[in-house]
Amino acid sequence: MRRQGPPEDHDDGVPDRLDALFAPRSVAVVGASNDPAKWGHIIARRALGSAADRPVLLVSRSHEVLGRATHPSVRAAAAAVGHPVDLAVLCVPATGFVAAVTDAVDAGVRVVVAITAGLSETGPEGAAREAEAVAVARAGGTAIVGPNCLGVVDHTSDLQLAPGTLPPGDVAVLSQSGNLVLDLAGLLADRGLGISRFVSLGNQADLGVVDFMRACVDHDGTRAVAVYTEDAVDGRGFVSAARALAAAGKPVVLLAPGRSETAARSAISHTGSLTTSSMVIDAACAASGVRRVDHLAQLADLLVALRSPRRMRGRRVAILTDGGGHGAVAAEVLSAAALDTPSLAEPVLGELRSALGPHPSLANPVDLAGAGERDLSSYARGVRVLVDSDQVDGVLLTGYFGGYGAWDPGMTGAELTAAHEMAAAVSGGTTPLVVQTVDPGSAASQVLAEAGIPVHRDVDRAAAVLAGLVEPARTGDVAVPDPAPPVTDASYAAARSLFADAGIAFPSARSVAGPRELEEALASGEIGYPVVLKATGRVHKSDGGGVVLGLADRTEVLAAHADLVDRLAPPSVSVEAMADTSGGTELIVGAVRDPRFGPVVMVGLGGVLTEVLDDTRCALAPVGAAAARDLLLSLQGAPVLLGARGRPPVDLDALAELVARVSLVATAHPELAELELNPVLARPDGVVALDARVVLAEDPS
Amino acid sequence: MRRQGPPEDHDDGVPDRLDALFAPRSVAVVGASNDPAKWGHIIARRALGSAADRPVLLVSRSHEVLGRATHPSVRAAAAAVGHPVDLAVLCVPATGFVAAVTDAVDAGVRVVVAITAGLSETGPEGAAREAEAVAVARAGGTAIVGPNCLGVVDHTSDLQLAPGTLPPGDVAVLSQSGNLVLDLAGLLADRGLGISRFVSLGNQADLGVVDFMRACVDHDGTRAVAVYTEDAVDGRGFVSAARALAAAGKPVVLLAPGRSETAARSAISHTGSLTTSSMVIDAACAASGVRRVDHLAQLADLLVALRSPRRMRGRRVAILTDGGGHGAVAAEVLSAAALDTPSLAEPVLGELRSALGPHPSLANPVDLAGAGERDLSSYARGVRVLVDSDQVDGVLLTGYFGGYGAWDPGMTGAELTAAHEMAAAVSGGTTPLVVQTVDPGSAASQVLAEAGIPVHRDVDRAAAVLAGLVEPARTGDVAVPDPAPPVTDASYAAARSLFADAGIAFPSARSVAGPRELEEALASGEIGYPVVLKATGRVHKSDGGGVVLGLADRTEVLAAHADLVDRLAPPSVSVEAMADTSGGTELIVGAVRDPRFGPVVMVGLGGVLTEVLDDTRCALAPVGAAAARDLLLSLQGAPVLLGARGRPPVDLDALAELVARVSLVATAHPELAELELNPVLARPDGVVALDARVVLAEDPS
Repeated sequence: MRRQGPPEDHDDGVPDRLDALFAPRSVAVVGASNDPAKWGHIIARRALGSAADRPVLLVSRSHEVLGRATHPSVRAAAAAVGHPVDLAVLCVPATGFVAAVTDAVDAGVRVVVAITAGLSETGPEGAAREAEAVAVARAGGTAIVGPNCLGVVDHTSDLQLAPGTLPPGDVAVLSQSGNLVLDLAGLLADRGLGISRFVSLGNQADLGVVDFMRACVDHDGTRAVAVYTEDAVDGRGFVSAARALAAAGKPVVLLAPGRSETAARSAISHTGSLTTSSMVIDAACAASGVRRVDHLAQLADLLVALRSPRRMRGRRVAILTDGGGHGAVAAEVLSAAALDTPSLAEPVLGELRSALGPHPSLANPVDLAGAGERDLSSYARGVRVLVDSDQVDGVLLTGYFGGYGAWDPGMTGAELTAAHEMAAAVSGGTTPLVVQTVDPGSAASQVLAEAGIPVHRDVDRAAAVLAGLVEPARTGDVAVPDPAPPVTDASYAAARSLFADAGIAFPSARSVAGPRELEEALASGEIGYPVVLKATGRVHKSDGGGVVLGLADRTEVLAAHADLVDRLAPPSVSVEAMADTSGGTELIVGAVRDPRFGPVVMVGLGGVLTEVLDDTRCALAPVGAAAARDLLLSLQGAPVLLGARGRPPVDLDALAELVARVSLVATAHPELAELELNPVLARPDGVVALDARVVLAEDPS
Repeated sequence: MRRQGPPEDHDDGVPDRLDALFAPRSVAVVGASNDPAKWGHIIARRALGSAADRPVLLVSRSHEVLGRATHPSVRAAAAAVGHPVDLAVLCVPATGFVAAVTDAVDAGVRVVVAITAGLSETGPEGAAREAEAVAVARAGGTAIVGPNCLGVVDHTSDLQLAPGTLPPGDVAVLSQSGNLVLDLAGLLADRGLGISRFVSLGNQADLGVVDFMRACVDHDGTRAVAVYTEDAVDGRGFVSAARALAAAGKPVVLLAPGRSETAARSAISHTGSLTTSSMVIDAACAASGVRRVDHLAQLADLLVALRSPRRMRGRRVAILTDGGGHGAVAAEVLSAAALDTPSLAEPVLGELRSALGPHPSLANPVDLAGAGERDLSSYARGVRVLVDSDQVDGVLLTGYFGGYGAWDPGMTGAELTAAHEMAAAVSGGTTPLVVQTVDPGSAASQVLAEAGIPVHRDVDRAAAVLAGLVEPARTGDVAVPDPAPPVTDASYAAARSLFADAGIAFPSARSVAGPRELEEALASGEIGYPVVLKATGRVHKSDGGGVVLGLADRTEVLAAHADLVDRLAPPSVSVEAMADTSGGTELIVGAVRDPRFGPVVMVGLGGVLTEVLDDTRCALAPVGAAAARDLLLSLQGAPVLLGARGRPPVDLDALAELVARVSLVATAHPELAELELNPVLARPDGVVALDARVVLAEDPS
């Protein structure tokens, strides 16, 4: 859980050293052993077992390991072969770690793969040792993978420096957990997939997941990247690397536990306490097209589906089936996956009638009602109409298709023909078809699978794949503003000015130091009744009765002011016009500076909704108004904004513009840890912020 | 979607006729055919293929079918064999359906299985034909399965009257969808399970799912019942049949699509519009111990798990694993299944330290951190401590256990031994263990499975099984009150009296017809200021400004009253003391009379929460205070009631008592379609209803 050093510390030469990692000219295994229980044995055996024509040197105190002569040090080994060793795997105890790294650096090793455990993951002593080793390595121009990792595999260069046999293929697997990888490898192999490269991330003390993602952008052997990480370390780097992979046509699927966590940060504002690191990861995925999954089977299924170029452009799915039960269950399961099964309309209904005859129930689910069984090609005709339609974004075929041949061998030929017709109907188009069938192993199912159509035994798996194929909305990037002159004053008045200067509206207000200024403010006519008084100088002004609402006339205002001064002795009092909250909706709009991902803007509905139901959403800042609008509409309570149950809709454009402006302020002010407008009052005729707060990064009082 | 006739119409003799259904002495297939595409062929072939020593008579216009002589009618067939035919399967067209039923009745057939389609499922004409046939059958004492069904199978009597071969076993499958059954049969067979009886419910025109559930209570060959239905038809019968099955130790698992539906009823009250039929089904499941699933794989998985007597008594799960990744992913997936992974405390932590040594991370996930791989028996020791603990309700073992032998054959023996130790640790206890493993087919995994421990390849499946094993809370039945004298007046005053008589508190109020009575009411001193005026005589009093709040003195009240009378000319106006809503939480408490399940009580948090987020829950009425309390605490927004974020907790006991009383009123008044208290104001010092409404079943104005 440590941060990677700033990229400029060692960015130069990283690509070279990654070449040395994935395709070294020579390898040393340090700590090689004859004891089969030891890593130095397992790794040495795997390295020697590689078919690659690459020198493997064993470094050990034993004179002989696995029938090979050893060297006393990497330096000695390098001298023996007459050229530097590119890569050294360190299988030494933690106590020997710094010495082993120093030896490797001295020998000109370009990258160290550190299996060694017992370092920063165990506490301060280990962390100090790890930091020392990293410093030695960086000074010598050597990169480190790990420590506390399981090793590295590259099937494209026949590099085998990890335990277990991984099936070869074209998926790069970058995993902070070693123990998930053999599990995942089995799931991939079951689905006909395999691994191009595997990197066990370990403690990411030097090289991190972002470096390895970047190394896959131009790697010919890699078509997709699977990442398991509990810490993205360099968040913005993660986003840019994922975008580069997406641009290269290589999808990234992320398994990152933490959705269920509650916010652990010691937040000052509600924005801080309501923004979990898992929400920020979701925001980063949305910004970079990364697909996030919840478990390994879903990851493996989605990697299969992503091999086809067909994607869901929205969340609308047509169900095609031959009987009510499968259709009803599929609709249920799609709904649970947040996908819609809209009623189909003309002209698609007419096309379905032409293709299928008038009898079937066609509205969605499209139920062949026995016609499918009688004429298997009707399935293919139905698929063709649906994938060509603009009324749905994907098609789910569910039921017996694929299993007719096993039921009645006389149907095998017709089923195969229909499968080929279906494959032809889908190919060349952009709309995905996903199939649930009773017999995924049949010849017909194989025809579909070979055409890039995901085939599943269980309908929930098929639904999860369709959901995973939904393309993230592309709302366009916003230019990142230059840093503004830093804010040094976190007072209410300063916060209000900061936002007001960004074009955000507040009720008219004046800050007054005493009764005379108060009288002047009231006499000015700038502030209409009813009036609000706020005692400044406290983080939560409403605590301890620091806010007095609804003061109807001068007498009430003066009395309330005197009372505030008596009770709280505030440095000043803000006198403000009270907004009419009737017919409006209160929201919270804020931003936090995430330690990994930088500025993150957050929106939520106000009051009980925000505080109890945690109905908040966030996005990497800055966002434009269009993305801000999408963010607001993704709230569970969005119907309130749109005019649910007879309420008038709020001015969503103005609200989105306010959110975009908050995101720009947050981006331009890296010195601010948290920013918050709470509440923002959204009404049909505009939006106004009723309170403002900023928290300085250096002084979270 | 039709209702079954009242049970008294044909209840007598149903058990006898069900014997005739499941173990007939003789069978006739009406409409037997030589055309392999016809049902009359498929069913005849299956019936003749049965190994049972049971006469099978074919009725057909052809003289010979499948090499057998036929009969022109069931009557003729019965005469030919010299005794009545117990069961006739009708495979005739819809146009011949009534005649075929009449022939069967005349022949003394006790139960008809009607494959015939094209009846009520197609529209009014078919419905009329179906009703006529049912009337003929009932008059003659003959029961009908279907029509529009796929037939019946009973492996325990070797009755084969449905297409396809179903694997024999001990699960009764009752399905309204024929097309799901072969799919389910395959899933069951994959898991080593099979079917005792299968009934295709069809249109449930006469016999319905409840009859077949009852028939399984004492059926020796059935250990569990799987139901697929889109309509429970006789809801309270469903509950009582499910309870009888539960009492006989036979779990019921229900697949009933509809969770994603929105309320379709034309509701008058919010209670009506917020109570979907799917919520009512959930309530019925809660009342009867039925387990509801979302798709077939989950159904099959749960049937396997329910074969063991071990159940989750709550939602707390301990995760046991040998590495961080599997543990983190499992925690995430359990959370998504609404299960908790609480931190373990002493003395369990101490017991784990004793069993596993001090090193592993034990707090939950219990991570063996390499100790598992080094000593496989540590897995079994960990399981023993956890299943014996009272800090969790279930245990999830996740990762490599079960797969070590395939990785390293030298570990096979130790893994088998550990599996046997694990099976011994679990057996005899009441806490379930569920296993996710990379190799469910290994010898060790088989040892676990044979010990009744569910073994899964994928962790989400394992989590779903654990969730399915959670026992429903048992809150005790409440005596059903006798019907009270029917309410005939749905006015506000009458509704208020009805609830007030049941002991529910309202603010003091008087109904006034004009200004003089208003003056008297104010002068009486019974109604303190501020005052509320409500114009009566409209369903939603607040529509059109029919409610005026916060009238501070006599002058304001008189003016507001005059304005109400001017604008709305209400029959009367209710003058009420205005409750202080500060520090309170508003709820909706209501009841509807469900056409299937009878009175259903509903609770929800008020305001935006209820209207937008549909955060409501319901239960079959009546409920006691304990069940009402559980219902309230099951709301997503329950933290508001318990004092979230510094609010004071409301008087939950008083609120639960109010809900229980509403449920009793609803039960005692079958003439009321809907009842509603909205809002109910719950405060720390008690609860008070601020408005009341009833809707008569006969007059949904």
